[in-house]
Amino acid sequence: MNASNPSPSQGSFDAQDQRHMRRALDLARGAMYRTSPNPRVGCVLVRDGQVLGEGATQAAGQDHAEVQAVKQAWERGHDVQRATAYVTLEPCSHHGRTPPCADLLVTQGVARVVAAMVDPNPQVAGQGLQRLRDAGIAVDVGLFADEAREINLGFVSRMVRGTPWVRLKVAASLDGVTALPNGVSQWITGEAARADGHHWRARACAVLTGLGTVRADDPQLNVRAVQTPRQPIRIVIDSRLECPPTARLLQSAESPLWIVHAVPPELAAPRLDALRHAATPKLDLQAIALPADPDKPGKNDLRALMQVLGQRGINELHCEAGEKLNGSMLRAGVVDELLLYLAPQLLGEGAGLAALGPYLSLSEGLRLRWHAVDPVGDDLRILARFPSASF
Amino acid sequence: MNASNPSPSQGSFDAQDQRHMRRALDLARGAMYRTSPNPRVGCVLVRDGQVLGEGATQAAGQDHAEVQAVKQAWERGHDVQRATAYVTLEPCSHHGRTPPCADLLVTQGVARVVAAMVDPNPQVAGQGLQRLRDAGIAVDVGLFADEAREINLGFVSRMVRGTPWVRLKVAASLDGVTALPNGVSQWITGEAARADGHHWRARACAVLTGLGTVRADDPQLNVRAVQTPRQPIRIVIDSRLECPPTARLLQSAESPLWIVHAVPPELAAPRLDALRHAATPKLDLQAIALPADPDKPGKNDLRALMQVLGQRGINELHCEAGEKLNGSMLRAGVVDELLLYLAPQLLGEGAGLAALGPYLSLSEGLRLRWHAVDPVGDDLRILARFPSASF
Repeated sequence: MNASNPSPSQGSFDAQDQRHMRRALDLARGAMYRTSPNPRVGCVLVRDGQVLGEGATQAAGQDHAEVQAVKQAWERGHDVQRATAYVTLEPCSHHGRTPPCADLLVTQGVARVVAAMVDPNPQVAGQGLQRLRDAGIAVDVGLFADEAREINLGFVSRMVRGTPWVRLKVAASLDGVTALPNGVSQWITGEAARADGHHWRARACAVLTGLGTVRADDPQLNVRAVQTPRQPIRIVIDSRLECPPTARLLQSAESPLWIVHAVPPELAAPRLDALRHAATPKLDLQAIALPADPDKPGKNDLRALMQVLGQRGINELHCEAGEKLNGSMLRAGVVDELLLYLAPQLLGEGAGLAALGPYLSLSEGLRLRWHAVDPVGDDLRILARFPSASF
Repeated sequence: MNASNPSPSQGSFDAQDQRHMRRALDLARGAMYRTSPNPRVGCVLVRDGQVLGEGATQAAGQDHAEVQAVKQAWERGHDVQRATAYVTLEPCSHHGRTPPCADLLVTQGVARVVAAMVDPNPQVAGQGLQRLRDAGIAVDVGLFADEAREINLGFVSRMVRGTPWVRLKVAASLDGVTALPNGVSQWITGEAARADGHHWRARACAVLTGLGTVRADDPQLNVRAVQTPRQPIRIVIDSRLECPPTARLLQSAESPLWIVHAVPPELAAPRLDALRHAATPKLDLQAIALPADPDKPGKNDLRALMQVLGQRGINELHCEAGEKLNGSMLRAGVVDELLLYLAPQLLGEGAGLAALGPYLSLSEGLRLRWHAVDPVGDDLRILARFPSASF
C-alpha cells in the first residue's frame, strides 16, 4: 500500500479481487527464473466474473504480463473492454525495450486496474497508475502488497537502494560446520536441499563466489537440478586475478563470467589475456576492476562492488562462498539474507559459516530475524534476514 | 499397541474413546513435574457418556492416577460400577509404595479398561491387564500409544534399557557458537528460551553438569523460571573431586547433590569431607565413585554412570554442560536427544556445541533425526534424536 496513491476503495478488496490477485501472484512466481533484470509480474483480465486472459512477464525484451494477458484474451476471441486487470506490479509507463503497458490498458478500454504494489522504478513510481486514472480507469492499489514485494525483492532493492538483494547460501551441520578440517564438504546436506539450492540460484540474476571456493571445489555455479530457460551470470571475486586457467568456470559459455579484481590495469591486462586464452571461445568474460578496500589492501571493496552490480542490472545476487568471503561480506554489511541448510548431523571441528570475531561481547554479534524455517528432505532450511534487509 | 495383548476391539476405538483418552493424556502431562521416579499417568472414568472422575499420578508414594479418579468420583457422589477407565498406562499389578491399581478397578466393578500402552516395568508388563481380564473386565490397548510413550520416555528407557533417557540441552548462535573466546555466554538465547529450558529441567529427574561449567558459570542447576512442586536432583561430574568449596551448588539443600568421581576411596574421603564441611548443613550430598574410563584415565566411564543412574531411579536426565563434556557424552553414545536453542545471531568464533572430531570423512559425523522444530520467543528450539533413541 502506497500513501501517494489514495483511492476510495483502497484496502477494501472483495473475495473476487483476492482470488484473482492470488492467481496473478502465482503467475508472477511462475516467471521467477526468466525475467532478469525485469521484475516478475502476473496479470489476470476479468469481466463479469469471467477470466478473459492471463499473462506473466517473458524474458527481457519480450512481452510484459499485461501484453501476454491481452493477447491471450484476443486468442480466445475476447476483447477486454470494461474488464478489470489484476496486476502484481503497477503497469509500466515508460518506453523501455517494450511500449508502456499502461497505454495498452487504456487503449484496450479496461475499466479498472487492481495493482498489488506501486512500481519502485523511479521511471514509473506511480506514473503508470496516474496515466490510468487520467484516462478514467478506476485504480486500486495494495492488495497482497507484501507478497508481491517478496516476489521482486531484488528488483525493489535495486530500484530503491541501487544495489542487489544479497542472499548468502550456506550448507552446514547442525553444529555449524561447513567443511571438515581436511576440506571435505561434499555433501553435508542431502539431495533435496541441493536441488532446492539450485532453485535459489535459478531465480538469481547472478551467482557469486570467491577464488577460495574456485580453488577448493572448482564449481560450475550454474543451475542443474531444476529446469531454467536462463542461466544466471557467474561472478568470481578474485582480487589478485589468480584464477587457475583450468577452472571449470572458464570452460562453459552458457552465461557470462564476471571476474572482480583489484589489480592495477597494467598488471591486470596480461592476466586477463591469459584467462581469455584459457577460456572456451564463446565465453563472455568480463573484468570488473574495483578499488581495493581501504581497510584491507589487496581486497575488493565489497560495498563498491554492490553498487556496480546494481548498475549492471543485478536484482538478486546469490552468494555461495567459503567462510572467509562470507565473513568479509557480512562484515561489510552487504548481506540481506542468510539461506542456511542445516543437516541433522554433528561434525565437531572444521570451517564455520562465516569468519567473524573474535567478539568480546555478545552484543557485537550479527543479529538476524527469522523469515522462514522449513524441512527440505532430511535437512532444515532456514531463511533469516539481517537489519540491512529492511529498506 | 502391544502384540502380547490381543483384544477383539484393539485398534478400533471410537470418537468417545479418543476424546476421553486425549483428556487422560492431558492429565498425564499435567503431572509432568511431580511424579519422579514414577511414570506420569492420567485416568478418566466414564459411564454412559458421563465423566465420573479424573485423576493423575501424584508425587512418589502418594496416589496413582486411578486412585485419584475413583476418589474424585466418590467425592462427586458416584460409584464407578460398569464404568470405563481410560488410562495412559497399564494399571499397576504390584505392591509398590501403593497397592495395585488393577485390584482397585476390579473391586470397584469397572466394566472396561482402555489403556494407551502396556507398562514396560517388568514387574507389571501385561500382568495388570491380565488381572483385569481374569476378572471379566474388557481390556483394549494401544489408543494413542505413541503419545503416551513420549510422556514417559524416561520411564520406558529405564525399564527397557536400565538407563535414563538422556537429553543434552545447548544454547547456541545460528553458527553454532555456545560461548565467545573469552568465555562469555550469558545470554546467547532470550528469556523465553531460558524459561523453556527450565520446563525441561523441571520434568527431568536429575540435571547434570560438569566441573568445567561449575567453574565457569557457577550454576544452581535448579528450576526457577517455571513453578514446580519438586526440584530435580543435581549431578556434577567431577572426576578428580576438584569442585570449589564456594560453588553455589553446595549452598542449596532444596534437592540432593550427587558428585560423580573416579578418585580412589582413600583420596576421595578427605576431599568429600571438605565439600560436606563447605556445604549448607541440610544438603543431601552423595558421592558416586565410578571406575575411570578405560580409554581415558582420570575420566569417568559415562556408560557405567548411566547404569548407576538407572539403578538410582533416574528416568529423564537433563544435561547442561560445556563442549568438552558434551563431546564426551556424545562419543560415549549415551545421549538420546539434543535440545538445541538457536539464537538468530552470528558470533563467529568461540566454543561449539560439542568437542568432536576432527573427522576425516562426513560419514564419521553423528547423525540425528529431527523430532520437532519450533519458535520459542526470538529463538528456534530444535529437538533432534540420536540413533540410540530408538529402543
